[in-house]
Amino acid sequence: MKAACYMGAGTIETIEAQPQEPAAGEVRVEVAYTGICGTDLHILHGAMDARVHLPAVLGHEMAGTIAAVGEGVDAWSPGDRVTVMPLAWCGHCPACRAGWQHICHNLDFIGIDSPGSMQTSWTVSQDVLVALPEGLPLADGALAEPTAVAVHDVRRAQLQAGEKTLIVGGGPIGLLIACVARAAGGDVLVLELNEARREFARSLELQTADPASGDLASVVAEWTHGGGADVAFEVSGAPAGLDTAIQSLATRGRVVVVAIHSAPPPVDLFRVFWRELTLIGARVYERSDFEEAVALLAGGMVPAARLTTAIEPLGRVAEAFAELESGRAMKILLDCQAQS
Amino acid sequence: MKAACYMGAGTIETIEAQPQEPAAGEVRVEVAYTGICGTDLHILHGAMDARVHLPAVLGHEMAGTIAAVGEGVDAWSPGDRVTVMPLAWCGHCPACRAGWQHICHNLDFIGIDSPGSMQTSWTVSQDVLVALPEGLPLADGALAEPTAVAVHDVRRAQLQAGEKTLIVGGGPIGLLIACVARAAGGDVLVLELNEARREFARSLELQTADPASGDLASVVAEWTHGGGADVAFEVSGAPAGLDTAIQSLATRGRVVVVAIHSAPPPVDLFRVFWRELTLIGARVYERSDFEEAVALLAGGMVPAARLTTAIEPLGRVAEAFAELESGRAMKILLDCQAQS
Repeated sequence: MKAACYMGAGTIETIEAQPQEPAAGEVRVEVAYTGICGTDLHILHGAMDARVHLPAVLGHEMAGTIAAVGEGVDAWSPGDRVTVMPLAWCGHCPACRAGWQHICHNLDFIGIDSPGSMQTSWTVSQDVLVALPEGLPLADGALAEPTAVAVHDVRRAQLQAGEKTLIVGGGPIGLLIACVARAAGGDVLVLELNEARREFARSLELQTADPASGDLASVVAEWTHGGGADVAFEVSGAPAGLDTAIQSLATRGRVVVVAIHSAPPPVDLFRVFWRELTLIGARVYERSDFEEAVALLAGGMVPAARLTTAIEPLGRVAEAFAELESGRAMKILLDCQAQS
Repeated sequence: MKAACYMGAGTIETIEAQPQEPAAGEVRVEVAYTGICGTDLHILHGAMDARVHLPAVLGHEMAGTIAAVGEGVDAWSPGDRVTVMPLAWCGHCPACRAGWQHICHNLDFIGIDSPGSMQTSWTVSQDVLVALPEGLPLADGALAEPTAVAVHDVRRAQLQAGEKTLIVGGGPIGLLIACVARAAGGDVLVLELNEARREFARSLELQTADPASGDLASVVAEWTHGGGADVAFEVSGAPAGLDTAIQSLATRGRVVVVAIHSAPPPVDLFRVFWRELTLIGARVYERSDFEEAVALLAGGMVPAARLTTAIEPLGRVAEAFAELESGRAMKILLDCQAQS
């Protein structure tokens, strides 16, 4: 079998590895497709060297088929089509005790803190499996994880049908949130600086606007009949994007902080006070989000195939990372079947 | 009759004025007591000269007795003891249409945008009256407005009984929030830099800690059994106070932004994301908050008399402002009866 490993110093390569037979409570999955995430790019750049253990098998977005089950695994059988919710929690910390296991203080994010899915054969606990329905192509199922992020973000916003919903940033996660928000009945507008990305968003029948056009305030005012947006999703990671979200919100509007802001940006708390706004942090997903993500993919509300720019064989992992890095792609998948 | 007027250029003085007979739908109130708020100090400093109309009768915290009613006022009679919720909304803007009249886009904050209660006789719309119960001294009733701020803040936090509740800043509003949160069942800890204010808070049987002590993290950890606070109220107005609130919160904790941050402070959005925190803006109050404030004052849960440092005659308004400015007082009331 093969595994794509981050070797440190900006290098990722495919190496020969040994399949791991499932222990009690585990299953071995033949990985069909695994996606590359922005976080994987950060790891390749060395930004998370304190967390990963070299050589690190990356990957936390995938779909595949169970090949073998360990002792005591009764609910799953070889041949079952699955994806993985890549979180393992401690069960004992204050977050776990309060019922927020998904953001456990000692969280093992599988594919970062422990070996991930960029390998032809992957052995995981049965606890992290999520079933994929028969009609859903495995390449589409590989988008369950980023779609679950979007579902969680929309849930954190408590989005109601009919609400004016602003997406600040039209990259992969921004467009997934746009599709999920639209499926929830939101009236969605995507703000994106890059014209090619705006054009792609429009090809998904999403409304778009250029936040650098100089008349954004009047665009938002016209769209919302003067009231402002009910909900904004900050997916840009830029202080200016956050400020655009805050300035565009209606009285009592909510902004979900999706992007990671490594440095604390200035936040217009006067506006937060004046309009009684709410800023909501959102991180990963809960199981219910993952299950809803699979349903939205199966129902076509999230058009996975259209969001997938390319599928590369696992052996071309370095080239695939470089392609994603260029910013021209939305989602790039690695085909692990070609390498088994 | 007399009225205390801001004359511009740092000057406030008591002048002779004419009582205004109530028009249809209005009442004339003999003001018994009126409080001085931090906002009144800002006005005296010239910080709100763009909003006030000189000479400006300040005052938006009061209690008094109805002296005369205008045509069409059926629900109120001379002799009724009342306070005033000092908000007049337009009824037509997007905020009003959405049901958030209290933060109307065209809000008239009475006592800032229009004449206030620092006068012996005050004529107002019947719409802003709130009844005071018989047993409540009028000097206590004059604290209904700042108490309503605290009730609104606690309501915005959706505070539940038993929750660990951090108050960052032990001035008048901080201590009112502490009392209201305690009445709602919160387990309250007040953080305050000033030892005299901490001592005063302890005299109200509130727990306190010094945020500059250097071991705040361990104090919070011990108090919350390692989990962090469920709710924090940022009442300091300082970027460091906001950061203390954010760093002290448990997973899924909420911070209510009560203080006004005129300049956008840096906000640790990574922590907001990592722990799925929520930042909540809160401004003034709704009628239900005002009515609950009166009930808390009448029930003794908010000890108005103990929070009132001094009662000065209206004629000593300039000295009373100077005393509040010194930072040694909590609440200072002006007695308008002595001047009628």
